[in-house]
Amino acid sequence: MADLNIGVLGASGMVGQEILVVLGERSFPVGEIRLAASQRSTGDRLLALGRRIPLTEPDPAFFAGLDLVFSAVAADVARRLYPLAKDAGAVLIDKSNAFRMDPLVPLVVPEVNPEALSARPSLIASPNCSTIPLVMALSRLRLLAPIEQVDVATYQAVSGTGRDAVAALTAEIAGQQPDPSIYPKPIAFNVLPLVDALNGSGHSLEEDKLRMESRKVLSDPALRISSTAVRVPVYRGHAEAVTVTLGHEVPLAELHDVLTSAPGLKVVDPPELPTPIDADGNDLVWIGRLRRDRDNPRRVMLFLVTDNLRKGAATNAVQIAEQLWGLVG
Amino acid sequence: MADLNIGVLGASGMVGQEILVVLGERSFPVGEIRLAASQRSTGDRLLALGRRIPLTEPDPAFFAGLDLVFSAVAADVARRLYPLAKDAGAVLIDKSNAFRMDPLVPLVVPEVNPEALSARPSLIASPNCSTIPLVMALSRLRLLAPIEQVDVATYQAVSGTGRDAVAALTAEIAGQQPDPSIYPKPIAFNVLPLVDALNGSGHSLEEDKLRMESRKVLSDPALRISSTAVRVPVYRGHAEAVTVTLGHEVPLAELHDVLTSAPGLKVVDPPELPTPIDADGNDLVWIGRLRRDRDNPRRVMLFLVTDNLRKGAATNAVQIAEQLWGLVG
Repeated sequence: MADLNIGVLGASGMVGQEILVVLGERSFPVGEIRLAASQRSTGDRLLALGRRIPLTEPDPAFFAGLDLVFSAVAADVARRLYPLAKDAGAVLIDKSNAFRMDPLVPLVVPEVNPEALSARPSLIASPNCSTIPLVMALSRLRLLAPIEQVDVATYQAVSGTGRDAVAALTAEIAGQQPDPSIYPKPIAFNVLPLVDALNGSGHSLEEDKLRMESRKVLSDPALRISSTAVRVPVYRGHAEAVTVTLGHEVPLAELHDVLTSAPGLKVVDPPELPTPIDADGNDLVWIGRLRRDRDNPRRVMLFLVTDNLRKGAATNAVQIAEQLWGLVG
Repeated sequence: MADLNIGVLGASGMVGQEILVVLGERSFPVGEIRLAASQRSTGDRLLALGRRIPLTEPDPAFFAGLDLVFSAVAADVARRLYPLAKDAGAVLIDKSNAFRMDPLVPLVVPEVNPEALSARPSLIASPNCSTIPLVMALSRLRLLAPIEQVDVATYQAVSGTGRDAVAALTAEIAGQQPDPSIYPKPIAFNVLPLVDALNGSGHSLEEDKLRMESRKVLSDPALRISSTAVRVPVYRGHAEAVTVTLGHEVPLAELHDVLTSAPGLKVVDPPELPTPIDADGNDLVWIGRLRRDRDNPRRVMLFLVTDNLRKGAATNAVQIAEQLWGLVG
């Protein structure tokens, strides 16, 4: 096939940078590539895919002639720029929260619901970085039994907030005062039981996303998912302690096999433990601590870890493009 | 009453040191005080309670004439020293895992089951640092409805492992290689889904303790408690994300009230969040993020944080002594 002309919105951000790395690693057929960034970065040049590329403003000329646009900008910016991509006839793969719950927009994890791409949509949303690994595990477990309830507690890295938060953790570790514009409390040597803002019911928007996005990706609109989303002083790698209540008992060995045989999942057995440092820089969903609840054999417990910038964001978006253009295996 | 002659086993450890601080803060009626430590510390002198006290070996002469001994040593050492305390006629309050599940030994959180002390036992166990705050919250919630299930994910500080682990976190942050004799993986900028060792069934001993000790303190031997215990790069303060499934629905305001009105609990409402840094150095069990599960109104969710060295260890032991000697209120 012909190379694709590609644009990246938010190219100087952490996810934008990772998209460029992943495109190169996976030998994605990149023709022309254009990089857009916020005004404070425009004029700079970025070394990406072996080329030196200027950062420009995402005006209509930016989009003209593009086949594919990866959006790694905030939801309000994505909403504003989507019409420009559409007018230019480009496919937009968006990492933000802007379109994920729009019933007309597919929300895709290629290992879980690739069929959502069969109608060749021109706008596709990639789920939240905590949702992606969770639905990858759940979609396998439900091959063996219906899922009645999912309970999650997260351990989320500061890179999920962005570059400023990474710098804030480093600064706090070095003894500087916490910057309250980043997090409401210190993050160094602390944990913060809030990711994103609180909604009116006492849950956080992150907890809402995990519940609503998982339902959509899994096409299970009544799935019960309760979670507590917590920020931890880790640079990279989101972890989740997960308990899944199944509709009937399944032998642990079968659950182990159905996870082990899934693309993208890496199951580790004792004494090995999955930790953020293991996930850093790779595309695997690491799963460990697989066990059965002692009081209820229908409940299965596991701990999973994923690089939030890779499979949790950039890699998933690139995989969506590969699926759309038939570049898969 | 007359001052008590007191011994502290493990006086140079983190919990032992904190016991001395708490005795002073609470104006505990201390007569003679003797401090025992491992051989590498004996000969040193410690400044405690305004006195300069030598660290000695815990031989029979150490125990002679003591009324009360606080034990902050490992389980095997506690088992070895208990007969010496008993022969000397001293009451032993033990912080280790040695006697907690012994049916003849009361396991006590004074706010929860002070009645366990009414027979004036000579050996009392203080629960694990994660168990204490959990049972304090659960004992209040069950005043309003029976508890069907408890789900916990922990965020535990390195000081729970001891002084070596505190030093290890500091060293790793400074760029030194992790010491595998402390934790099996790096702890700086990482989370480790294992506290204490694994048992044969895939659960950790810490997760077992949380379940079995909570059942004993709450006198509810069939209580369902599932947990995942995780170590995080925090110096001080254990946090827990908790979901409690009640036997029937209770208005959230009533649950809030029953927690707020309990001694030792500090409920914070949005936008306030309980974090380890808030708990550091005080004796409160901080509770926040109180909310109802969106899919099941019988499920209540909260996040709690406690200083693992204070109420999670030293303060609870001193409170047990206050209760035994009628020094309360």
